[in-house]
Amino acid sequence: MDSSEKMNRTEISALGKVAFVDRLTRPFATSADPRIRQGIGDDGAVIDRGGDRLEVICQTTMLEGIDFDLTYTPLEHLGYKLVVAALSNLCAMNAQAEYLTVSAGLSARFSVEEASALYDGIKRAVDTYGLALIGGNTSASLTGLTLAATAIGSATADELTLRSGAAENELLCVTGDLGAAYMGLQLLEREKRVLRGNGVSRPEIGKEHAYLLERQLKPEARVEVLRQLNGEGIKPSAMIDITRGLASAALHLCRCSGVGARIYLNRIPIASDTFKLAEEMHIDPVVAALNGGDDFELLFTAPLEKHRELLAMPGVDVIGHVVPASAGAALVTPDGGEIRLQAPDWTAREEG
Amino acid sequence: MDSSEKMNRTEISALGKVAFVDRLTRPFATSADPRIRQGIGDDGAVIDRGGDRLEVICQTTMLEGIDFDLTYTPLEHLGYKLVVAALSNLCAMNAQAEYLTVSAGLSARFSVEEASALYDGIKRAVDTYGLALIGGNTSASLTGLTLAATAIGSATADELTLRSGAAENELLCVTGDLGAAYMGLQLLEREKRVLRGNGVSRPEIGKEHAYLLERQLKPEARVEVLRQLNGEGIKPSAMIDITRGLASAALHLCRCSGVGARIYLNRIPIASDTFKLAEEMHIDPVVAALNGGDDFELLFTAPLEKHRELLAMPGVDVIGHVVPASAGAALVTPDGGEIRLQAPDWTAREEG
Repeated sequence: MDSSEKMNRTEISALGKVAFVDRLTRPFATSADPRIRQGIGDDGAVIDRGGDRLEVICQTTMLEGIDFDLTYTPLEHLGYKLVVAALSNLCAMNAQAEYLTVSAGLSARFSVEEASALYDGIKRAVDTYGLALIGGNTSASLTGLTLAATAIGSATADELTLRSGAAENELLCVTGDLGAAYMGLQLLEREKRVLRGNGVSRPEIGKEHAYLLERQLKPEARVEVLRQLNGEGIKPSAMIDITRGLASAALHLCRCSGVGARIYLNRIPIASDTFKLAEEMHIDPVVAALNGGDDFELLFTAPLEKHRELLAMPGVDVIGHVVPASAGAALVTPDGGEIRLQAPDWTAREEG
Repeated sequence: MDSSEKMNRTEISALGKVAFVDRLTRPFATSADPRIRQGIGDDGAVIDRGGDRLEVICQTTMLEGIDFDLTYTPLEHLGYKLVVAALSNLCAMNAQAEYLTVSAGLSARFSVEEASALYDGIKRAVDTYGLALIGGNTSASLTGLTLAATAIGSATADELTLRSGAAENELLCVTGDLGAAYMGLQLLEREKRVLRGNGVSRPEIGKEHAYLLERQLKPEARVEVLRQLNGEGIKPSAMIDITRGLASAALHLCRCSGVGARIYLNRIPIASDTFKLAEEMHIDPVVAALNGGDDFELLFTAPLEKHRELLAMPGVDVIGHVVPASAGAALVTPDGGEIRLQAPDWTAREEG
């Protein structure tokens, strides 16, 4: 029926995820449509319809077994997180979110009440962030719960921030703290292992870990920080959201901007709760920050002259600076040594 | 962690899919945003950004095991079909397609070549229909291949056609022919059963069934018919695409428009190839047309005074007319009897 039967077989892992996504999307890289201001390759696409605002469109998927585990993820939180994940992409474009479509593939074991809990969470997030859910569909699924959301927003040409705008000598900044969601996940996974087989369906975890769990199960999007930056007259030159760890985000930003970066290891913001649990579990908290997922923080670059304002701003840390592409992307250790920045390969999603 | 552990349990099938989707989406039904011209409940959502064209947004998902079977679906065709499915929703709004985002969740067994074949099909469809792929992502999946596409287009306020515009005495029309994709599916399923276990990976099916296979594996969207209608000065008053059978589409259209309908059984367009194979397989071809999926044809209503033009138009059949809601939706048999129209319940997706 087609020629695919005799196809060669190259494993995705052999090619590497960046090259793989590039191979899939390269044929779509150019378009004759002058209204496309940004196509594939950023947190969202940007269309210029000729009005005073550009339209920004971001698509996000969350798949059972990869992006969440229903044994310990309350469905209401999952619905909320789906919206946050979609919204976080719009934040990374410095765009204002407006509309959302959500499609859910529900397995047969789902009850009406469970599906309702999922949509209650979506509703709560939509209300919290002032969005409107305008479409999508609900279907049966044989293959676990699958969620897809498209967030649509807008930004003026001045506001719009791409991954590609970073320039040499600019400051590299990050919002919030990193690695907490990853440690929350480790906690849930540990409890799952402990409780497996004894009939208790949801782990009980001590109150001292509330912050880590909240960061994993009910993250928020960094809308407020963008308002602060705007209030201070600071326009990020490049931005990306940190959903698969700082390392992956920094490498994407460097590649899209054609620059390198130096990130000072001891400036990466890590919460004390993250440190404590990482120590207890024999995990390097810096590795959690670099490679852990689901933080939904923002990595951005800003002009050097805004150094003082950025240092004074709550919820923002200056973690390094932009260097020429030839110098590459590296971590700087406290003793001044350099470690080449690397991201884990094709394991979960590729941000496309 | 939340209150869901003690939840009541109602099966989705017990509630019925229309009531189920209504329960999930009702909280989102109203919005204070005056720019939303159509929210949840049509083939797509419509946003009025103040320009001379309205924006139309349609989200579609296709899940392995529900919407396709990879044992007999060439990946290139699947990619093509995904785009057609998304586009068909825009056609049903009488909108012009412009942009597309696609997200794919790929299981670990996928090779680079297989993923490329999928995207080759997407590329071919995008080129055929003059769209631009502007975003999306590629992720790993533990649960089979999952595809999500969002199609974005536009229409003037005059062109825009909702499900809700049908009025009494109007003509009920359908494009193309129905049931062929369903019979193509039966053919592929039969070959799969025959060949299971003998090591042949893709069924060989005789050339006489080429039409049915093409309708199932490589459908097209009805862009051309919309151009014809426009050329004849016929503006559909209501429209919906037929992806889950004529019965489901007609019932949706009637409910959204607050009308009833009479559909003449012997006027439902069914191709001779569909008839022949249905007879051979002891399937009622009318049932294939009413309840079979994947036809991607359009059901629309039009003013009575366009009767002559519609009868003369290739690729369009007048199959009935609109009656008051109190008269309900029914099939009319050749002897003048009436059968209440019913659609299969929660099995595959709900168009929503």
